[in-house]
Amino acid sequence: MSHNTFGHLFRVTTWGESHGPAIGCVVDGCPPLIPLTETDLQGWLEKRKPGQSKYTTQRREADEVRILSGVMVDGDGVQKTTGTPISLEIQNTDQRSKDYSEIKERFRPGHADYTYDAKYGIRDYRGGGRSSARETAARVAAGGVARKVIPGIRIRGALVQIGPHKIDRSRWDWAEIDNNPFFCPDRQAAGEWADYLDGIRKSGSSVGAVVEVIAEDVPVGLGAPIYGKLDADLAAAMMSINAVKGVEIGNGFEAASLTGEENADEMRIGQGKTPIFLSNNAGGVLGGISSGEPVVVRFAVKPTSSILTPRKSVTRTGEEVDVMTKGRHDPCVGIRAVPVGEAMMACVLADHFLRNRAQVG
Amino acid sequence: MSHNTFGHLFRVTTWGESHGPAIGCVVDGCPPLIPLTETDLQGWLEKRKPGQSKYTTQRREADEVRILSGVMVDGDGVQKTTGTPISLEIQNTDQRSKDYSEIKERFRPGHADYTYDAKYGIRDYRGGGRSSARETAARVAAGGVARKVIPGIRIRGALVQIGPHKIDRSRWDWAEIDNNPFFCPDRQAAGEWADYLDGIRKSGSSVGAVVEVIAEDVPVGLGAPIYGKLDADLAAAMMSINAVKGVEIGNGFEAASLTGEENADEMRIGQGKTPIFLSNNAGGVLGGISSGEPVVVRFAVKPTSSILTPRKSVTRTGEEVDVMTKGRHDPCVGIRAVPVGEAMMACVLADHFLRNRAQVG
Amino acid sequence: MSHNTFGHLFRVTTWGESHGPAIGCVVDGCPPLIPLTETDLQGWLEKRKPGQSKYTTQRREADEVRILSGVMVDGDGVQKTTGTPISLEIQNTDQRSKDYSEIKERFRPGHADYTYDAKYGIRDYRGGGRSSARETAARVAAGGVARKVIPGIRIRGALVQIGPHKIDRSRWDWAEIDNNPFFCPDRQAAGEWADYLDGIRKSGSSVGAVVEVIAEDVPVGLGAPIYGKLDADLAAAMMSINAVKGVEIGNGFEAASLTGEENADEMRIGQGKTPIFLSNNAGGVLGGISSGEPVVVRFAVKPTSSILTPRKSVTRTGEEVDVMTKGRHDPCVGIRAVPVGEAMMACVLADHFLRNRAQVG
Amino acid sequence: MSHNTFGHLFRVTTWGESHGPAIGCVVDGCPPLIPLTETDLQGWLEKRKPGQSKYTTQRREADEVRILSGVMVDGDGVQKTTGTPISLEIQNTDQRSKDYSEIKERFRPGHADYTYDAKYGIRDYRGGGRSSARETAARVAAGGVARKVIPGIRIRGALVQIGPHKIDRSRWDWAEIDNNPFFCPDRQAAGEWADYLDGIRKSGSSVGAVVEVIAEDVPVGLGAPIYGKLDADLAAAMMSINAVKGVEIGNGFEAASLTGEENADEMRIGQGKTPIFLSNNAGGVLGGISSGEPVVVRFAVKPTSSILTPRKSVTRTGEEVDVMTKGRHDPCVGIRAVPVGEAMMACVLADHFLRNRAQVG
Repeated sequence: MSHNTFGHLFRVTTWGESHGPAIGCVVDGCPPLIPLTETDLQGWLEKRKPGQSKYTTQRREADEVRILSGVMVDGDGVQKTTGTPISLEIQNTDQRSKDYSEIKERFRPGHADYTYDAKYGIRDYRGGGRSSARETAARVAAGGVARKVIPGIRIRGALVQIGPHKIDRSRWDWAEIDNNPFFCPDRQAAGEWADYLDGIRKSGSSVGAVVEVIAEDVPVGLGAPIYGKLDADLAAAMMSINAVKGVEIGNGFEAASLTGEENADEMRIGQGKTPIFLSNNAGGVLGGISSGEPVVVRFAVKPTSSILTPRKSVTRTGEEVDVMTKGRHDPCVGIRAVPVGEAMMACVLADHFLRNRAQVG
Repeated sequence: MSHNTFGHLFRVTTWGESHGPAIGCVVDGCPPLIPLTETDLQGWLEKRKPGQSKYTTQRREADEVRILSGVMVDGDGVQKTTGTPISLEIQNTDQRSKDYSEIKERFRPGHADYTYDAKYGIRDYRGGGRSSARETAARVAAGGVARKVIPGIRIRGALVQIGPHKIDRSRWDWAEIDNNPFFCPDRQAAGEWADYLDGIRKSGSSVGAVVEVIAEDVPVGLGAPIYGKLDADLAAAMMSINAVKGVEIGNGFEAASLTGEENADEMRIGQGKTPIFLSNNAGGVLGGISSGEPVVVRFAVKPTSSILTPRKSVTRTGEEVDVMTKGRHDPCVGIRAVPVGEAMMACVLADHFLRNRAQVG
Repeated sequence: MSHNTFGHLFRVTTWGESHGPAIGCVVDGCPPLIPLTETDLQGWLEKRKPGQSKYTTQRREADEVRILSGVMVDGDGVQKTTGTPISLEIQNTDQRSKDYSEIKERFRPGHADYTYDAKYGIRDYRGGGRSSARETAARVAAGGVARKVIPGIRIRGALVQIGPHKIDRSRWDWAEIDNNPFFCPDRQAAGEWADYLDGIRKSGSSVGAVVEVIAEDVPVGLGAPIYGKLDADLAAAMMSINAVKGVEIGNGFEAASLTGEENADEMRIGQGKTPIFLSNNAGGVLGGISSGEPVVVRFAVKPTSSILTPRKSVTRTGEEVDVMTKGRHDPCVGIRAVPVGEAMMACVLADHFLRNRAQVG
Repeated sequence: MSHNTFGHLFRVTTWGESHGPAIGCVVDGCPPLIPLTETDLQGWLEKRKPGQSKYTTQRREADEVRILSGVMVDGDGVQKTTGTPISLEIQNTDQRSKDYSEIKERFRPGHADYTYDAKYGIRDYRGGGRSSARETAARVAAGGVARKVIPGIRIRGALVQIGPHKIDRSRWDWAEIDNNPFFCPDRQAAGEWADYLDGIRKSGSSVGAVVEVIAEDVPVGLGAPIYGKLDADLAAAMMSINAVKGVEIGNGFEAASLTGEENADEMRIGQGKTPIFLSNNAGGVLGGISSGEPVVVRFAVKPTSSILTPRKSVTRTGEEVDVMTKGRHDPCVGIRAVPVGEAMMACVLADHFLRNRAQVG
């Protein structure tokens, strides 16, 4: 079962609610002897942290991660993993439960309120409880561990569309990612987006986005046939992120419009007698197994459901009401989904890397 | 681990290669006392069976499924499941291994040949071996069992795009599905597609497609939070089908372009004091849990990689060659992916239906 | 995979080392709406807590458990589970790492030192690290949650043998369990054991024991055929406890000596037309499924490996040495294994209770 | 979930009933490039096959295993595994369903009849259906594959007790195993057992037994901490065999009577600077991880429940009856449990061997 666990050999079990005392995860299956400190993880958490620009929620969280188990200082003075489970914990510090009292009995449209309530008969209404995007902080911490398991693989994400506005791929420059608050690789688009999103934010509205995550230097052979396909695991990983409604690999939905001649990536012999591909429509995955080309995943994030415009809804007791979500929210949750997508990519690849080492897919 | 097994409580383990003596699966976790005969399953296999029109591969398979375990005739004379594993077997009858001898050492572009070989150091080159779409016959048989587990839910699939040609959704008529060889719900589109695909077929080319699968009368509450989300499981299920490159739920990638006002489905109180939704942009899933609205999944199928036009490739021993795939193939594998998508939807819903019964997600 | 996770639907993932900042577990799969507070769990932890008599280690731990997620106060003012993962944490307070410095490079005979080191190339030598019996505190906390899932089932454990000294079963009195520091149901034996174990303790030696755990009012039908048998899961559960070397169900190894006439439990019709058994040699399990009779499990605990007598051993660098284990230890770890065995019984039964509810074994 | 699947990386899913058309299993997770033919497996099946002496059931089964997938003839002319699932099938040929008609409505004491019926509401009453020892033929076939995964490890089993009669361990001679119908390593005991069991058989009675399985040349480091301990997995494996009521590792229950001085295995440095143990009370497992010493497991098998003496029982409709089991049965099912125990040992070791290769336990 996998309600709150992700992965097979590299397993991440997350726990915690938006407004409880803490959130965290247990990373089980990390090999021993990997240098690992809290500093290694903190950097990734900073990327995802709320309140860093006016385009993300103004909730202020220190998001300091503590490692409670699974490491020790070795004889050489370096703290390393021991092969035992790594417990990671992040305190919740800025919770403001009062903000949520009035939606206790009301279902916010687009949120998981109604379905959680229908399923469980009880739900933590404070900030979305378990369904809050806050859970993704634990994913990012776990992703930091995963990256250490596959140090040769480079994983980077970018926002490639916000609302209807796409980047111009000919202007893609990874160096731009850190120069704007959108993880946007197109400097010009980033400038236009700033104005656009400012308008969205001021009007209390919200907007969707598309995230692209690319893993380079992935070895050939990661992925298990049929139901443990690398792309099937990536699809599940990305779709499990809050608000994601679509996932594609390589040229994805575009492939439907192509002919076999246009779509199949031709091969030649490269340097060192290694087979190479002349294109990467497949997004680095063939038959569920990595081809050595960059693994390319894109996912669509729906607009934040919390908006200031009143929407029709109902209460737990069956009354019709209008709901306007106050509180602090991201005008575009897609932005902070970038480091989360990177973390999920890292977890999936670490898992398959270990599976591959066992030579059983 | 899940190389060849799908599901958690309703578990399907498939086995078999394109050109071995048989293929099949073991369905474990089917509740007892469900009436089940081979006839119940055979109907679904007929839908997927090759050689039924000029638009699908001319391989001729009887595709007769046998139930080898897990059922017995009860005191009332009706054959029922006993709660023990159901072993399903389908003989391979039309294998023609000779067709494939010349690609034994060559990697067909777009196929899993290269990655399987790189991963395992050995591969069954006859008809794609394990990576053949033939494996999906076992899925369809398992899906037939799954449907019996959730008899109140109606699952139907349709082809909504072939190459660049989409249906007109205003003309959607489920009754048309059986009137054309494309599972197309738009009579006019089906007519146009026939001409279009005929050209593709005659030129030895191929084309992609988009499949949509809809489940109606799904109870509220199916799906487990976070990593066992209903939509995450559906994404993995569909992405695990051969040649699939993208999956979306509800309005999917379109959601990225919308505002929160446009996207969130408003609610009112319907008959019997039950909450209802005024739209279904979410595709029947909120926070990973079914909302009671129809569950709507779409997936993109890439064009068949086997085409008559020679493509650049390499051999196992590192020589550059041109590969032209002879043999019998579908000009559009997306067509036969329709019943496969339905089967995967049935398996996912049956799994979550049973999980829900345990009240643990 | 299950390195640090136990269970299928009711899943417990433990983490933490003897001398890290804390230990804990995540309980995933607990149904919603179950009243649960820290007080509910603390009582079971008190039973297992060290330092309560001269017969257990003098390590002093508060063993206070905190619930960090998965519960909330419902509308009726009662704190209940929400169906989300329950994170439990226990601080380590009395660690005295100094005690262990001299065995850093030496393998203690009978301990996991050598095998952990050979497997991982690194190990937390402080107090056994992950292989310390301290891990079982997390199991006991999880077992407290499990008991709430199956409130109708009564689970009690007892020490039935210490060293070569067995209880007299004709004197079995559950009320005695709390009257002696051994969980011994035989008042007379408890008195004799006190003298015996005092001698063992004073000589710096140690001794083994046998624990018996009985679950009453277990419903008929818990257990899954073949590889998920109730007794197979119990065997794994008990054997996974530190120092356990044998597990038996019902009359266990004694059954080998019996004839079919002597061993099979005959049946009659009891009150309410319910089938009853005239004996319980089977220990409440037939064909892997509970029969409605008490489920009876016994397990053998080897003597504590830490003793004051020097034993031959080797160092990490291949030198021959003598090792004498100082530090604080139990002269008979079997005593504190009683509440741990109860907890594992509770976890196994809760898991199968939920599986049964799904009607798939 | 694991109702009918055993193992994590090396996974065996068995299916089939005593009186259905066939039984079999799917072995998933077998690495590629391992030479494998039906002949390799058939030898192990011969060892378990019924009807080979008057001490086992007179049911006559060819027990011919077919490999339906997962292998192919490689370029060197040798048939090898391909890394895809291996489907194994054994036809049922001698079923005689008529023998069982009269126990259709009656629960045989000691059998799983009552519990299966109570759990599922339906059961295959013919020969025990799924709960028949016939299922173990599939385990033995799978075990044959497992042995190929760990060719360096030698696995042998023996019957060490039948009824109250134990072997004399000082006379243990592996060469004797094949010289008597009991897999008895003590020639003198085997002679005495023949007379004893003849009496049991003629009187229509039955008797229990103890089986010991030993694996030699097991590498150090197999086993995962805490819940995936090698001995916990072995305990589950052996307890999952029909009629097994107890499992012990090394000196097992005897360890309870010993002191720490007597029980702990001392260490010295052996040849090649390798640590060696001076005794093997631990049975080759320390802290759940293999120590390099032989892995020693014993399990108790209860007497066959099918006996000619009438026993008190009840019917499905609540009437009290006497049941006398006719049909063909083993007077001591423990005998044929020897190759089954070996097979389970092989499966557990193969699984942990692969897990170890992934370096995650």
